[in-house]
Amino acid sequence: MSGSAVRMQKNAAMLTPVQLEDLQRRFGERLSLSAAAREAHGRDESFYPPAPPDAVLMAESEADVCAAVAWCHEARVPLIPFGAGTSLEGHVLAVQGGLCLDLTRMNSILRIDAGDLTATVQPGVTREQLNTALRDQGLFFPIDPGANATLGGMAATRASGTNAVRYGTLRENVLMLRAVLPPGRVIQGGSRAKKSSAGYDLARLLVGSEGTLGVITELTLKLHPLPEQVAAASVQFASIDAAVNCCIAIIQSGVPIARCELLDAHTVRAVNAADGLGLVEAPLLLLEFHGSPGSLREQVDTVQLLAAEQGGHRFDWAESPESRSRLWRARHRAYWSAKQMKPGCRALTTDVCVPISRLAECVGESLAEAEAAGIDHFLVGHVGDGNFHLGYLVGSDAELATAERLSAQLVQRALRLEGTCTGEHGIGLHKQAYLLQEAGEDSVAAMRAIKAALDPRGVMNPGKVFSAPSLRPFGPSPPPEGARPPWGGPAAGPTP
Amino acid sequence: MSGSAVRMQKNAAMLTPVQLEDLQRRFGERLSLSAAAREAHGRDESFYPPAPPDAVLMAESEADVCAAVAWCHEARVPLIPFGAGTSLEGHVLAVQGGLCLDLTRMNSILRIDAGDLTATVQPGVTREQLNTALRDQGLFFPIDPGANATLGGMAATRASGTNAVRYGTLRENVLMLRAVLPPGRVIQGGSRAKKSSAGYDLARLLVGSEGTLGVITELTLKLHPLPEQVAAASVQFASIDAAVNCCIAIIQSGVPIARCELLDAHTVRAVNAADGLGLVEAPLLLLEFHGSPGSLREQVDTVQLLAAEQGGHRFDWAESPESRSRLWRARHRAYWSAKQMKPGCRALTTDVCVPISRLAECVGESLAEAEAAGIDHFLVGHVGDGNFHLGYLVGSDAELATAERLSAQLVQRALRLEGTCTGEHGIGLHKQAYLLQEAGEDSVAAMRAIKAALDPRGVMNPGKVFSAPSLRPFGPSPPPEGARPPWGGPAAGPTP
Repeated sequence: MSGSAVRMQKNAAMLTPVQLEDLQRRFGERLSLSAAAREAHGRDESFYPPAPPDAVLMAESEADVCAAVAWCHEARVPLIPFGAGTSLEGHVLAVQGGLCLDLTRMNSILRIDAGDLTATVQPGVTREQLNTALRDQGLFFPIDPGANATLGGMAATRASGTNAVRYGTLRENVLMLRAVLPPGRVIQGGSRAKKSSAGYDLARLLVGSEGTLGVITELTLKLHPLPEQVAAASVQFASIDAAVNCCIAIIQSGVPIARCELLDAHTVRAVNAADGLGLVEAPLLLLEFHGSPGSLREQVDTVQLLAAEQGGHRFDWAESPESRSRLWRARHRAYWSAKQMKPGCRALTTDVCVPISRLAECVGESLAEAEAAGIDHFLVGHVGDGNFHLGYLVGSDAELATAERLSAQLVQRALRLEGTCTGEHGIGLHKQAYLLQEAGEDSVAAMRAIKAALDPRGVMNPGKVFSAPSLRPFGPSPPPEGARPPWGGPAAGPTP
Repeated sequence: MSGSAVRMQKNAAMLTPVQLEDLQRRFGERLSLSAAAREAHGRDESFYPPAPPDAVLMAESEADVCAAVAWCHEARVPLIPFGAGTSLEGHVLAVQGGLCLDLTRMNSILRIDAGDLTATVQPGVTREQLNTALRDQGLFFPIDPGANATLGGMAATRASGTNAVRYGTLRENVLMLRAVLPPGRVIQGGSRAKKSSAGYDLARLLVGSEGTLGVITELTLKLHPLPEQVAAASVQFASIDAAVNCCIAIIQSGVPIARCELLDAHTVRAVNAADGLGLVEAPLLLLEFHGSPGSLREQVDTVQLLAAEQGGHRFDWAESPESRSRLWRARHRAYWSAKQMKPGCRALTTDVCVPISRLAECVGESLAEAEAAGIDHFLVGHVGDGNFHLGYLVGSDAELATAERLSAQLVQRALRLEGTCTGEHGIGLHKQAYLLQEAGEDSVAAMRAIKAALDPRGVMNPGKVFSAPSLRPFGPSPPPEGARPPWGGPAAGPTP
C-alpha cells in the first residue's frame, strides 16, 4: 500500500494561477506558496513519501476557517486540515493536491473552568501547552499519545495513548466542540453540561472523522484533578506471554491502573541505547498508579501479587518526578529509538487493538510470525487497552514486502479475535480496505452517505478514510452542478 | 406543547386494508391489529395523550426487523420502535400512525464475557434482567434510569440515571452495536476492542438517535466489577442551597462518588408517604459509595467533612443491602409518589443539566419561581451530574399553562447557564424548539442532513427530534419517487 500515496499524488488537480491569486487577495500574508512551506506541510510521521499541497493557509480565526472551507467548496478544491503533522497514517498528505489549512496559529487556551473541570481551547493548542497552563490549578488533561500533538488533531483521529486505560480516549474527554462544515457553516456538538440527550451526537461524529467532514475550531475538554500520589515502576518478565498475562490479570482485577505499557526486549535494548536507561533487556511492563495514599497502596499490593504469579518479581520504582518523566520520555521515544537500531531503515508500524482476553494470543502469534520471517521488529503497547504497536524495520524492497505481508496478517488476526485494525492512529490512507472488512460494506456505505450529506463535493481531506471510487456497485448520482449541502432535509414522515 | 401530539395524530396516514393484509401475510401471528395491542403501544409515561399505531409487530429476530424496515421504507409508512414504553418524552407515540415494532421478544442475553467485562444482548433485554444474569459473575451493568427499561430503549435515548456520576451514561458504556437502517440494511458500530479509531463513530450516532435513524438490534455493553464494598447514606440539610453546594464540593473534590441524588422536602414527604421511609422532611442528599475498604473510608471521610461545612451533620447509613435497596426503590418511585400527593393530577417533568458550578443558581432560581407561581411541584436530581428534574403537578388548564411557562423559563435558564435542555430523557416531541435553540440552526440542519441521508423517506419514528416542516427556509428537494438511500456516495475529491 505504501505506493498508493504516490499514485494518488499523480491524480492531484493543481490549483490554477488564477485560483492562487484569488486566495492571496483574500488571505494576504497568511497564505504561502513557497516550496519550503508546501514541503513542510506535505509530510507527516507516516511511512509515505511527501505529498505537498498547492498552497498553505495559516488560519488565525474561525472566520479564516469558514472562508477557507467556503472557498474550497465553491472551487471544488481539496482542503486538508493540518496540526502538528504527527500523524502516522498519512492524514495530512495532500494526495489530491489542494489547500493545506494550518491551524497552529489558533493556539489560544480560551477558558479554564476549574470548578467544572473543563478547558476550552482552539484546535492548535498542544497537549503539553494545555498541561503547562493547568499545572498551578491542580488539574491535568490525561490523554497522552506521546507526540506533542495539537488537541484538534488528536480529536480528529480519536487519539488516546498511555493514560487511556484509566482516563479514556479523546472520545470520552470531549465535552463540546465547534466545527466548520461545507459550505462554511459552524456547528456545535455537545454542551458544557456533563451529559446531554439533546439530538444526534455531532461531537462524537467529528471526533475520529480525520478531517473528512469538517474542521474542528474549538474544543471543550474534560480535565481531571492531579492525583494525590503517583507511583511508577518497571517490572520485567521471562517472556512476553508472562508480561501480557500479568497485564490481563491487572485489568480483569479491576485495579484502576493509570498506565500499563509493554515493551519487548528489542525495544528495551533500543531505549537503553537511546536514553541510557539501563533497564534489564527483557520484556517489561511500565506501570503507573494514581490515587490517594490508601488506594495507591491497595493498587500496588494487588498488582505486585499478580505480577509475582507471572514471575515478575522485581519492581523497579521511579521514585522522583524526574525519574518518572525520564522513564515516560524514553517510552514515548521508543519508536524513534527502535528505528535507530537499524540505520537508514523505515518503520512500518501497526496499531491493532483486541479484547483484553485475546491479547496474549494476538501478541504471541504476531511476534512468532515476525521471528519466523526473520525481519527486524519491535513491540510497544498500551496493553491495558488491548492495543499494541508491532513495528517492522524495513531497509529493502524485500523487507518492505515482508513487512506488508506480516502487517496484513496481523490485522486479519486482530479481526478474527474481534478487535479493530486501528486502536488510535486512524484509517488515513493505509487501512481503508481493513475498515471495509472490519465494519462491513453496509456500515462503510452508511459512513459514506454521511460524508456525502455533509460534504457533497468531497472537498474535505479527500482520499482519507474512504478512497474513491465508490465501494458499492450502486449509489446516488453525484450532486448536480451548483448543488448545496442538503441542509435541512425532507419533512419527517411519509409523503401524504 | 402537550396538544401537539394530538394535532399530529390528526395528520396520521392510516395504513390501508391492503397494506394490513400484506403485513399479516408476511408476519402471521406476530402482527396484531387488536385495539388492546394498539392502545397498549400508543402510550408511554410522558405527559401526552395516547397516539396508537395502526398495527403492532412483535419482532422475534433481526430478520424480522430487516423485513419491517424494508416494508415501511418501500410503503413509506412510519416505523416506531417500542421497548418497555417508559419514555417520558413521547418517543413511542405513533403521532403519524404507522407500524409499531415491539422488540420485547428479542430479549436474549447472547453472551457474557467476564474476561473482557462485556455483555452482548438483544435490544429487548431489560437492565434488571441483565443484572440478574450477572449477579453470580461478580459483575454489574451500572446504568440505572430508575424504570426497568429495555437496554435498546436506553441506548436510543442516551439514558443515564443515578450511577452515571461515576460510571457514565449509555454513551460511554456501549462498546459495539448492530442496527437496521432503511431500506433494511444491517450496520455495525464499534468493535469488541476497548477502543478504536476505525472510521466514523456509528455507535455513538445511533445512541441517542431516538429511533429516527434505525432500529438497534444488538448491543455489546461494558460491565463493571461489583464493588468490594458499598455504603449508602442519606444526609439532610437546612436548605436546598446547602445540599446543592455540598454536592458541588463533592464533585469538585474529585471523590469518585457512585451516587449523589437530591430530593427536596416535598419529594421527601411524598416518598415517606408512599414507602414509609420515615426520612426527615428536609432537603436530602442520597449518597452511595463504591470501593475497597480503604478507598471507601477515604471517600466517606472527605464527604462527611464537606457535608458538615454545609451544615449536613447527621449521616443516616443504610447498612444492609435490603435497607439500601429500599432507599433506592423509594428514590426511583419518587416521580409516582409525588404524583400521589395530588390525586388525579398529571406531572409535567423537566430534565435540564448544567455545568456543576452553575447548579446552585439553576436550582435556586427555578424553585423560587415555582414557589412564587404557587404551583405544586417536586424536585429530584442526579445532581452529581448537574442534572435535575423539577416536576410540576397539574390538575387544571390554568395549572398546565403555568407549568408550561415555568418549564420554558427553566430551559431558558439552563441554556443561559451553558447547560442542556435534556440531560437524559431526550428530545422526543416536546423539546424540538429547545434543541434548535441549544445547538443552533446549522447544527440541527446538519443532524437533519444525516437523517435525510440515512432515512431519505423519513419513515423512522417520524415527528421525533425534528418536526416537519423543514427548520430552514431552504433545503434540498424531497427524494424523487422510488429513491433509494444514498448508500455509497460521490467519489471523494473534487470533480476533475
